[in-house]
Amino acid sequence: MKRIVIDMDEVIADPHAKFIEMFNAEFQLGLHKDQLHGGEISDAVPPELRHKVLEYINTPGFFRHLPIIPDSQEVLKALQEKYEVYIVSAATEFRNSLIDKLDWLNDYFPFISWQQVVFCGNKIVHGDIMIDDRSRNFTHFMGDRKLLFTSSHNVNETAFERVNTWKEVAEKLL
Amino acid sequence: MKRIVIDMDEVIADPHAKFIEMFNAEFQLGLHKDQLHGGEISDAVPPELRHKVLEYINTPGFFRHLPIIPDSQEVLKALQEKYEVYIVSAATEFRNSLIDKLDWLNDYFPFISWQQVVFCGNKIVHGDIMIDDRSRNFTHFMGDRKLLFTSSHNVNETAFERVNTWKEVAEKLL
Repeated sequence: MKRIVIDMDEVIADPHAKFIEMFNAEFQLGLHKDQLHGGEISDAVPPELRHKVLEYINTPGFFRHLPIIPDSQEVLKALQEKYEVYIVSAATEFRNSLIDKLDWLNDYFPFISWQQVVFCGNKIVHGDIMIDDRSRNFTHFMGDRKLLFTSSHNVNETAFERVNTWKEVAEKLL
Repeated sequence: MKRIVIDMDEVIADPHAKFIEMFNAEFQLGLHKDQLHGGEISDAVPPELRHKVLEYINTPGFFRHLPIIPDSQEVLKALQEKYEVYIVSAATEFRNSLIDKLDWLNDYFPFISWQQVVFCGNKIVHGDIMIDDRSRNFTHFMGDRKLLFTSSHNVNETAFERVNTWKEVAEKLL
């Protein structure tokens, strides 16, 4: 059985939606996700508010109730019939994200066991296929196939095989 | 640079000492670490108290102030001059251990950055050398060299190259 390693943020969980909600609630920016196209959340807010990105992301609870990326639950469940599935998230950068991320997975992906979860810094995992929105995470990955999951900040990257949606992942891998 | 992946519990941190302290405080068992020889902590306590092992390990704070395995700090620091060092702990089994383990590492191994930390279930990491007290963790490891770090529960295993102390690790790898 081949092994797929799958990222969390901007792949199965949507922190952008949460950032936008928090910025709009605190500063009435009227931000919309289309404004992120081609960049990061920090590019979409006024320079004097950029420090709030780190403040928000370090807030306990930030990662606890993130929206789910469409179709990720159904497709992951189906992938698990054909592959060893692992969730691999660069979570150790944010201390307060760890428990929130595990609880979130238990709630929304209950078919993923604790054995299948990796919270790390550098993604030094061993597998065959990686699905991630950050091409820097492909650096440490020795597997055959790297699928760049489309997110606003990577729309201009062309070096990797791209998947725009979980329906496209299903077409390629199921 | 070769990559070494190093376990936490019973390799650089000492949960046995903490279990013994908690059992003795709550039940006046007069447990001593020599009584663990050849077994697990659950083998050393009366059958009717075995359920307390899971209760203790799931208590927030359990992993926060564990004693350090002798010489591990000095040897890890020296290893880091010659190798890529990663800490890889099967922590996702215990939700409440995650933040405690990260804080513990930051306190006692401040030269290990968040990029070098992996909290996982199955240890699907990519590296050259693994140091672990649980031979089951060698199953997923494709590296060349597996060093079984002596702990009470593994003293009768003979299938792997063994290291009894961090001084022995230093002799072999530095």
